Amino acid sequence: MIAGFGRFDQIVGRLLAANGCKATILDHNPGQIEMLRRFGFKIFYGDASRIELLQAARAARAKLLVVAIDERDTILEVVELARKRFPHLKILARAIDRSHAYELIRRGADGVQRETFGSALEMGMEALKLLGVRSYKARRAALTFKEHDEEALREMAFAENRDETVLIARSRQLAQQLEQLLQTDDQELTHEVDLAWDISALRQDRG
Amino acid sequence: MIAGFGRFDQIVGRLLAANGCKATILDHNPGQIEMLRRFGFKIFYGDASRIELLQAARAARAKLLVVAIDERDTILEVVELARKRFPHLKILARAIDRSHAYELIRRGADGVQRETFGSALEMGMEALKLLGVRSYKARRAALTFKEHDEEALREMAFAENRDETVLIARSRQLAQQLEQLLQTDDQELTHEVDLAWDISALRQDRG
Repeated sequence: MIAGFGRFDQIVGRLLAANGCKATILDHNPGQIEMLRRFGFKIFYGDASRIELLQAARAARAKLLVVAIDERDTILEVVELARKRFPHLKILARAIDRSHAYELIRRGADGVQRETFGSALEMGMEALKLLGVRSYKARRAALTFKEHDEEALREMAFAENRDETVLIARSRQLAQQLEQLLQTDDQELTHEVDLAWDISALRQDRG
Repeated sequence: MIAGFGRFDQIVGRLLAANGCKATILDHNPGQIEMLRRFGFKIFYGDASRIELLQAARAARAKLLVVAIDERDTILEVVELARKRFPHLKILARAIDRSHAYELIRRGADGVQRETFGSALEMGMEALKLLGVRSYKARRAALTFKEHDEEALREMAFAENRDETVLIARSRQLAQQLEQLLQTDDQELTHEVDLAWDISALRQDRG
Protein backbone atom coordinates (compact mmCIF):
# COMPACT_ATOMS: atom_id res chain seq x y z
CA MET A 1 0.00 0.00 0.00
CA ILE A 2 1.54 3.28 -1.11
CA ALA A 3 0.34 6.71 0.04
CA GLY A 4 1.16 9.23 -2.69
CA PHE A 5 2.28 8.66 -6.25
CA GLY A 6 4.68 11.38 -7.30
CA ARG A 7 8.19 10.90 -8.74
CA PHE A 8 9.43 9.27 -5.53
CA ASP A 9 6.55 6.87 -4.92
CA GLN A 10 6.44 5.87 -8.57
CA ILE A 11 9.93 4.42 -8.41
CA VAL A 12 8.94 2.42 -5.31
CA GLY A 13 5.72 1.25 -6.99
CA ARG A 14 7.43 0.31 -10.24
CA LEU A 15 10.17 -1.65 -8.46
CA LEU A 16 7.54 -3.55 -6.47
CA ALA A 17 5.45 -4.16 -9.60
CA ALA A 18 8.46 -5.44 -11.52
CA ASN A 19 8.85 -7.98 -8.71
CA GLY A 20 5.26 -9.11 -8.80
CA CYS A 21 3.90 -7.00 -5.90
CA LYS A 22 0.90 -5.02 -7.08
CA ALA A 23 0.50 -2.18 -4.62
CA THR A 24 -2.67 -0.35 -3.66
CA ILE A 25 -2.19 3.38 -4.23
CA LEU A 26 -3.79 6.10 -2.10
CA ASP A 27 -3.60 9.53 -3.67
CA HIS A 28 -5.45 12.80 -4.13
CA ASN A 29 -4.80 12.87 -7.79
CA PRO A 30 -2.62 10.21 -9.31
CA GLY A 31 -1.71 10.95 -12.92
CA GLN A 32 -1.74 8.37 -15.67
CA ILE A 33 -4.61 6.35 -14.17
CA GLU A 34 -5.07 4.22 -17.24
CA MET A 35 -1.46 3.13 -17.32
CA LEU A 36 -1.44 2.46 -13.57
CA ARG A 37 -4.55 0.29 -13.82
CA ARG A 38 -3.07 -1.55 -16.79
CA PHE A 39 0.03 -2.26 -14.73
CA GLY A 40 -2.26 -3.83 -12.14
CA PHE A 41 -2.39 -1.21 -9.39
CA LYS A 42 -5.54 -0.67 -7.31
CA ILE A 43 -6.22 3.02 -6.77
CA PHE A 44 -8.09 4.83 -3.99
CA TYR A 45 -8.66 8.56 -4.34
CA GLY A 46 -8.48 10.79 -1.33
CA ASP A 47 -6.51 12.03 1.63
CA ALA A 48 -4.34 9.27 3.14
CA SER A 49 -4.27 11.08 6.48
CA ARG A 50 -7.99 10.29 6.94
CA ILE A 51 -8.87 7.04 8.65
CA GLU A 52 -11.81 6.42 6.29
CA LEU A 53 -9.52 6.14 3.27
CA LEU A 54 -7.11 3.80 5.05
CA GLN A 55 -10.04 1.62 6.11
CA ALA A 56 -11.59 1.59 2.64
CA ALA A 57 -8.25 0.53 1.16
CA ARG A 58 -8.18 -2.28 3.75
CA ALA A 59 -5.12 -1.18 5.67
CA ALA A 60 -6.18 -3.71 8.31
CA ARG A 61 -5.26 -6.49 5.91
CA ALA A 62 -2.16 -4.90 4.38
CA LYS A 63 1.37 -5.88 5.38
CA LEU A 64 3.19 -2.71 4.49
CA LEU A 65 2.46 0.99 4.12
CA VAL A 66 4.87 3.18 2.16
CA VAL A 67 4.39 6.91 2.86
CA ALA A 68 6.24 8.92 0.27
CA ILE A 69 4.02 11.95 -0.25
CA ASP A 70 5.83 15.20 -1.09
CA GLU A 71 4.58 17.11 2.01
CA ARG A 72 6.38 17.10 5.32
CA ASP A 73 3.34 17.45 7.61
CA THR A 74 1.10 15.04 5.73
CA ILE A 75 3.77 12.34 5.98
CA LEU A 76 3.90 12.85 9.76
CA GLU A 77 0.11 12.70 10.07
CA VAL A 78 -0.26 9.54 7.98
CA VAL A 79 2.51 7.77 9.91
CA GLU A 80 1.06 8.74 13.27
CA LEU A 81 -2.48 7.69 12.33
CA ALA A 82 -1.44 4.41 10.73
CA ARG A 83 0.82 3.53 13.69
CA LYS A 84 -2.02 4.11 16.16
CA ARG A 85 -4.82 2.38 14.28
CA PHE A 86 -2.97 -0.47 12.53
CA PRO A 87 -0.29 -1.63 14.96
CA HIS A 88 0.56 -4.71 12.85
CA LEU A 89 1.40 -2.61 9.77
CA LYS A 90 5.03 -2.11 8.77
CA ILE A 91 5.56 1.54 7.86
CA LEU A 92 8.28 2.98 5.60
CA ALA A 93 8.36 6.75 5.34
CA ARG A 94 10.10 9.34 3.20
CA ALA A 95 11.96 11.95 5.25
CA ILE A 96 12.52 15.42 3.82
CA ASP A 97 15.61 15.98 5.97
CA ARG A 98 17.36 14.84 9.13
CA SER A 99 15.03 16.47 11.66
CA HIS A 100 11.99 15.14 9.80
CA ALA A 101 13.59 11.69 10.01
CA TYR A 102 13.98 12.01 13.81
CA GLU A 103 10.33 12.92 14.13
CA LEU A 104 9.17 10.02 11.94
CA ILE A 105 11.23 7.53 13.94
CA ARG A 106 9.73 8.86 17.18
CA ARG A 107 6.23 8.48 15.75
CA GLY A 108 6.87 4.82 15.09
CA ALA A 109 7.96 4.47 11.44
CA ASP A 110 9.73 1.13 11.00
CA GLY A 111 12.02 2.55 8.33
CA VAL A 112 12.89 6.02 7.11
CA GLN A 113 14.59 7.15 3.88
CA ARG A 114 15.94 10.67 3.70
CA GLU A 115 14.93 11.77 0.23
CA THR A 116 18.36 12.69 -1.18
CA PHE A 117 20.56 10.49 1.02
CA GLY A 118 20.42 7.41 -1.24
CA SER A 119 21.26 9.38 -4.37
CA ALA A 120 24.12 11.17 -2.64
CA LEU A 121 25.54 7.82 -1.55
CA GLU A 122 25.21 6.46 -5.09
CA MET A 123 27.09 9.47 -6.36
CA GLY A 124 29.80 9.01 -3.73
CA MET A 125 30.11 5.40 -4.83
CA GLU A 126 30.42 6.39 -8.49
CA ALA A 127 33.05 8.96 -7.49
CA LEU A 128 35.08 6.31 -5.67
CA LYS A 129 34.96 4.08 -8.74
CA LEU A 130 36.07 6.90 -11.04
CA LEU A 131 38.97 7.50 -8.63
CA GLY A 132 40.10 3.90 -9.08
CA VAL A 133 38.41 2.02 -6.21
CA ARG A 134 37.15 -1.37 -7.34
CA SER A 135 33.44 -1.70 -7.84
CA TYR A 136 32.50 -4.01 -4.99
CA LYS A 137 34.80 -2.24 -2.59
CA ALA A 138 33.12 1.08 -3.40
CA ARG A 139 29.71 -0.53 -2.88
CA ARG A 140 30.84 -1.98 0.41
CA ALA A 141 32.16 1.37 1.59
CA ALA A 142 28.81 2.97 0.72
CA LEU A 143 26.91 0.27 2.61
CA THR A 144 29.11 0.67 5.68
CA PHE A 145 28.59 4.42 5.54
CA LYS A 146 24.83 3.99 5.20
CA GLU A 147 24.52 1.49 8.04
CA HIS A 148 26.60 3.64 10.32
CA ASP A 149 24.72 6.81 9.45
CA GLU A 150 21.36 5.15 9.98
CA GLU A 151 22.39 3.77 13.37
CA ALA A 152 23.48 7.29 14.31
CA LEU A 153 20.13 8.66 13.08
CA ARG A 154 18.21 6.23 15.26
CA GLU A 155 20.40 6.97 18.29
CA MET A 156 19.99 10.71 17.89
CA ALA A 157 16.22 10.47 17.35
CA PHE A 158 15.89 9.11 20.87
CA ALA A 159 18.61 11.25 22.47
CA GLU A 160 17.30 12.78 25.70
CA ASN A 161 19.36 15.90 25.42
CA ARG A 162 18.07 17.53 22.25
CA ASP A 163 20.29 20.57 22.63
CA GLU A 164 21.65 21.53 19.20
CA THR A 165 25.29 21.86 20.36
CA VAL A 166 25.26 18.44 21.99
CA LEU A 167 23.74 16.86 18.88
CA ILE A 168 26.35 18.45 16.61
CA ALA A 169 29.21 17.34 18.85
CA ARG A 170 27.85 13.78 18.93
CA SER A 171 27.38 13.88 15.18
CA ARG A 172 31.06 14.77 14.67
CA GLN A 173 32.13 12.03 17.04
CA LEU A 174 30.11 9.52 15.01
CA ALA A 175 31.67 10.79 11.76
CA GLN A 176 35.14 10.14 13.17
CA GLN A 177 34.14 6.66 14.31
CA LEU A 178 32.99 5.98 10.77
CA GLU A 179 36.28 7.06 9.27
CA GLN A 180 38.09 4.69 11.64
CA LEU A 181 35.64 1.91 10.81
CA LEU A 182 36.23 2.25 7.07
CA GLN A 183 39.98 2.29 7.54
CA THR A 184 39.76 -0.91 9.60
CA ASP A 185 37.62 -2.49 6.90
CA ASP A 186 40.28 -1.59 4.43
CA GLN A 187 43.02 -3.43 6.28
CA GLU A 188 40.85 -6.49 6.68
CA LEU A 189 40.32 -6.58 2.95
CA THR A 190 43.85 -7.82 2.22
CA HIS A 191 42.28 -11.21 1.50
CA GLU A 192 39.25 -9.80 -0.25
CA VAL A 193 36.06 -11.81 -0.41
CA ASP A 194 33.19 -11.27 -2.77
CA LEU A 195 30.67 -11.64 0.01
CA ALA A 196 31.77 -8.17 1.01
CA TRP A 197 28.60 -6.65 -0.35
CA ASP A 198 26.58 -7.94 2.56
CA ILE A 199 27.88 -5.91 5.47
CA SER A 200 25.58 -7.42 8.08
CA ALA A 201 26.66 -10.95 7.17
CA LEU A 202 30.28 -9.88 7.51
CA ARG A 203 29.66 -8.35 10.90
CA GLN A 204 28.09 -11.57 12.14
CA ASP A 205 31.13 -13.46 10.85
CA ARG A 206 33.41 -11.26 12.87
CA GLY A 207 31.42 -11.57 16.07
CA MET B 1 36.83 18.33 -6.40
CA ILE B 2 33.30 19.08 -5.24
CA ALA B 3 31.27 22.11 -6.30
CA GLY B 4 28.79 22.92 -3.54
CA PHE B 5 28.61 21.64 -0.01
CA GLY B 6 24.99 21.35 1.08
CA ARG B 7 23.26 18.24 2.47
CA PHE B 8 23.80 16.33 -0.79
CA ASP B 9 27.43 17.19 -1.41
CA GLN B 10 28.33 16.62 2.21
CA ILE B 11 27.38 12.96 2.00
CA VAL B 12 29.54 12.59 -1.12
CA GLY B 13 32.43 14.43 0.56
CA ARG B 14 32.18 12.43 3.78
CA LEU B 15 32.07 9.10 1.94
CA LEU B 16 35.15 10.09 -0.06
CA ALA B 17 36.94 11.35 3.06
CA ALA B 18 36.16 8.14 4.93
CA ASN B 19 37.91 6.32 2.09
CA GLY B 20 40.99 8.48 2.18
CA CYS B 21 40.11 10.90 -0.67
CA LYS B 22 40.35 14.47 0.56
CA ALA B 23 38.31 16.54 -1.83
CA THR B 24 38.75 20.19 -2.75
CA ILE B 25 35.50 22.06 -2.09
CA LEU B 26 34.27 25.00 -4.16
CA ASP B 27 31.45 26.90 -2.53
CA HIS B 28 29.98 30.35 -1.99
CA ASN B 29 29.58 29.80 1.65
CA PRO B 30 30.40 26.44 3.10
CA GLY B 31 29.31 26.12 6.73
CA GLN B 32 31.41 24.56 9.44
CA ILE B 33 34.73 25.60 7.90
CA GLU B 34 36.73 24.63 10.94
CA MET B 35 35.41 21.10 10.95
CA LEU B 36 35.88 20.72 7.21
CA ARG B 37 39.50 21.88 7.44
CA ARG B 38 40.08 19.55 10.36
CA PHE B 39 38.75 16.67 8.25
CA GLY B 40 41.36 17.59 5.64
CA PHE B 41 39.32 19.33 2.95
CA LYS B 42 40.78 22.20 0.92
CA ILE B 43 38.26 24.99 0.47
CA PHE B 44 37.91 27.62 -2.26
CA TYR B 45 35.30 30.33 -1.84
CA GLY B 46 33.36 31.56 -4.80
CA ASP B 47 31.16 30.79 -7.76
CA ALA B 48 32.03 27.43 -9.33
CA SER B 49 30.52 28.51 -12.64
CA ARG B 50 33.41 31.01 -13.09
CA ILE B 51 36.50 29.78 -14.84
CA GLU B 52 38.79 31.71 -12.47
CA LEU B 53 37.66 29.66 -9.49
CA LEU B 54 38.06 26.37 -11.32
CA GLN B 55 41.55 27.40 -12.40
CA ALA B 56 42.55 28.57 -8.92
CA ALA B 57 41.38 25.24 -7.50
CA ARG B 58 43.55 23.52 -10.12
CA ALA B 59 40.82 21.77 -12.04
CA ALA B 60 43.44 21.13 -14.73
CA ARG B 61 45.13 18.69 -12.37
CA ALA B 62 41.98 17.15 -10.83
CA LYS B 63 40.64 13.76 -11.88
CA LEU B 64 37.02 14.22 -10.97
CA LEU B 65 34.53 17.03 -10.52
CA VAL B 66 31.34 16.41 -8.54
CA VAL B 67 28.67 19.06 -9.18
CA ALA B 68 25.95 18.76 -6.55
CA ILE B 69 24.89 22.33 -5.97
CA ASP B 70 21.22 22.86 -5.10
CA GLU B 71 20.43 25.05 -8.14
CA ARG B 72 19.32 23.69 -11.47
CA ASP B 73 20.84 26.34 -13.72
CA THR B 74 24.14 26.63 -11.86
CA ILE B 75 24.66 22.89 -12.18
CA LEU B 76 24.15 23.16 -15.96
CA GLU B 77 26.56 26.09 -16.23
CA VAL B 78 29.32 24.44 -14.22
CA VAL B 79 29.04 21.19 -16.20
CA GLU B 80 29.12 23.00 -19.53
CA LEU B 81 32.10 25.16 -18.57
CA ALA B 82 34.09 22.31 -17.05
CA ARG B 83 33.41 20.04 -20.03
CA LYS B 84 34.64 22.70 -22.46
CA ARG B 85 37.71 23.84 -20.59
CA PHE B 86 38.88 20.62 -18.93
CA PRO B 87 38.14 17.81 -21.38
CA HIS B 88 40.11 15.24 -19.34
CA LEU B 89 37.97 15.80 -16.22
CA LYS B 90 35.38 13.18 -15.23
CA ILE B 91 32.18 14.96 -14.27
CA LEU B 92 29.42 13.62 -12.01
CA ALA B 93 26.36 15.83 -11.68
CA ARG B 94 23.26 15.98 -9.53
CA ALA B 95 20.03 16.13 -11.54
CA ILE B 96 16.94 17.75 -10.06
CA ASP B 97 14.60 15.65 -12.19
CA ARG B 98 14.43 13.64 -15.40
CA SER B 99 14.51 16.51 -17.89
CA HIS B 100 17.43 18.10 -16.03
CA ALA B 101 19.20 14.74 -16.32
CA TYR B 102 18.69 14.69 -20.11
CA GLU B 103 20.17 18.17 -20.39
CA LEU B 104 23.19 17.28 -18.24
CA ILE B 105 23.92 14.19 -20.30
CA ARG B 106 23.73 16.24 -23.49
CA ARG B 107 26.17 18.77 -22.04
CA GLY B 108 28.68 16.02 -21.45
CA ALA B 109 28.35 14.89 -17.82
CA ASP B 110 29.94 11.44 -17.45
CA GLY B 111 27.45 10.43 -14.80
CA VAL B 112 24.18 11.82 -13.49
CA GLN B 113 22.29 11.11 -10.26
CA ARG B 114 18.66 12.17 -10.04
CA GLU B 115 18.42 13.58 -6.54
CA THR B 116 15.63 11.39 -5.14
CA PHE B 117 16.04 8.35 -7.39
CA GLY B 118 18.59 6.55 -5.21
CA SER B 119 16.54 7.02 -2.04
CA ALA B 120 13.37 5.85 -3.76
CA LEU B 121 15.17 2.72 -4.92
CA GLU B 122 16.47 2.11 -1.40
CA MET B 123 12.94 2.41 -0.10
CA GLY B 124 11.66 0.02 -2.75
CA MET B 125 14.35 -2.43 -1.72
CA GLU B 126 13.40 -2.14 1.95
CA ALA B 127 9.76 -2.66 0.97
CA LEU B 128 10.63 -5.85 -0.93
CA LYS B 129 12.50 -7.15 2.12
CA LEU B 130 9.58 -6.39 4.45
CA LEU B 131 7.35 -8.28 2.01
CA GLY B 132 9.52 -11.36 2.38
CA VAL B 133 12.03 -11.10 -0.47
CA ARG B 134 15.51 -12.16 0.62
CA SER B 135 18.02 -9.42 1.16
CA TYR B 136 20.43 -10.02 -1.71
CA LYS B 137 17.61 -10.75 -4.13
CA ALA B 138 15.98 -7.42 -3.26
CA ARG B 139 19.32 -5.68 -3.76
CA ARG B 140 19.78 -7.39 -7.08
CA ALA B 141 16.30 -6.40 -8.24
CA ALA B 142 17.04 -2.79 -7.31
CA LEU B 143 20.34 -2.87 -9.21
CA THR B 144 18.67 -4.34 -12.31
CA PHE B 145 15.99 -1.66 -12.10
CA LYS B 146 18.59 1.08 -11.72
CA GLU B 147 20.76 -0.13 -14.60
CA HIS B 148 17.78 -0.44 -16.87
CA ASP B 149 16.39 2.94 -15.93
CA GLU B 150 19.74 4.62 -16.46
CA GLU B 151 20.17 3.04 -19.88
CA ALA B 152 16.70 4.30 -20.78
CA LEU B 153 17.63 7.76 -19.49
CA ARG B 154 20.72 7.86 -21.69
CA GLU B 155 18.80 6.63 -24.72
CA MET B 156 16.05 9.20 -24.27
CA ALA B 157 18.54 12.04 -23.69
CA PHE B 158 19.79 11.54 -27.23
CA ALA B 159 16.43 10.70 -28.81
CA GLU B 160 15.98 12.69 -32.04
CA ASN B 161 12.25 12.93 -31.71
CA ARG B 162 11.78 14.91 -28.50
CA ASP B 163 8.01 14.98 -28.84
CA GLU B 164 6.46 14.40 -25.41
CA THR B 165 4.00 11.72 -26.60
CA VAL B 166 6.73 9.70 -28.29
CA LEU B 167 8.93 9.93 -25.20
CA ILE B 168 6.11 8.76 -22.92
CA ALA B 169 5.24 5.85 -25.21
CA ARG B 170 8.89 4.79 -25.33
CA SER B 171 9.11 5.17 -21.57
CA ARG B 172 6.19 2.74 -21.10
CA GLN B 173 7.72 0.28 -23.50
CA LEU B 174 10.96 0.35 -21.51
CA ALA B 175 9.02 -0.19 -18.27
CA GLN B 176 7.44 -3.32 -19.70
CA GLN B 177 10.81 -4.59 -20.89
CA LEU B 178 12.06 -4.14 -17.35
CA GLU B 179 9.23 -6.16 -15.87
CA GLN B 180 10.03 -8.98 -18.28
CA LEU B 181 13.73 -8.71 -17.48
CA LEU B 182 13.12 -9.03 -13.76
CA GLN B 183 10.84 -12.01 -14.24
CA THR B 184 13.51 -13.71 -16.33
CA ASP B 185 16.07 -12.98 -13.66
CA ASP B 186 13.79 -14.64 -11.18
CA GLN B 187 13.67 -17.90 -13.09
CA GLU B 188 17.42 -17.94 -13.53
CA LEU B 189 17.82 -17.60 -9.80
CA THR B 190 16.80 -21.20 -9.09
CA HIS B 191 20.47 -21.93 -8.46
CA GLU B 192 21.17 -18.69 -6.70
CA VAL B 193 24.68 -17.35 -6.57
CA ASP B 194 26.02 -14.79 -4.19
CA LEU B 195 27.76 -12.94 -6.97
CA ALA B 196 24.29 -11.73 -7.85
CA TRP B 197 25.01 -8.31 -6.41
CA ASP B 198 27.20 -7.42 -9.37
CA ILE B 199 24.72 -7.19 -12.22
CA SER B 200 27.27 -6.19 -14.84
CA ALA B 201 29.46 -9.20 -14.02
CA LEU B 202 26.43 -11.46 -14.35
CA ARG B 203 25.52 -10.01 -17.71
CA GLN B 204 29.02 -10.64 -18.97
CA ASP B 205 28.72 -14.21 -17.72
CA ARG B 206 25.58 -14.70 -19.71
CA GLY B 207 27.06 -13.24 -22.86
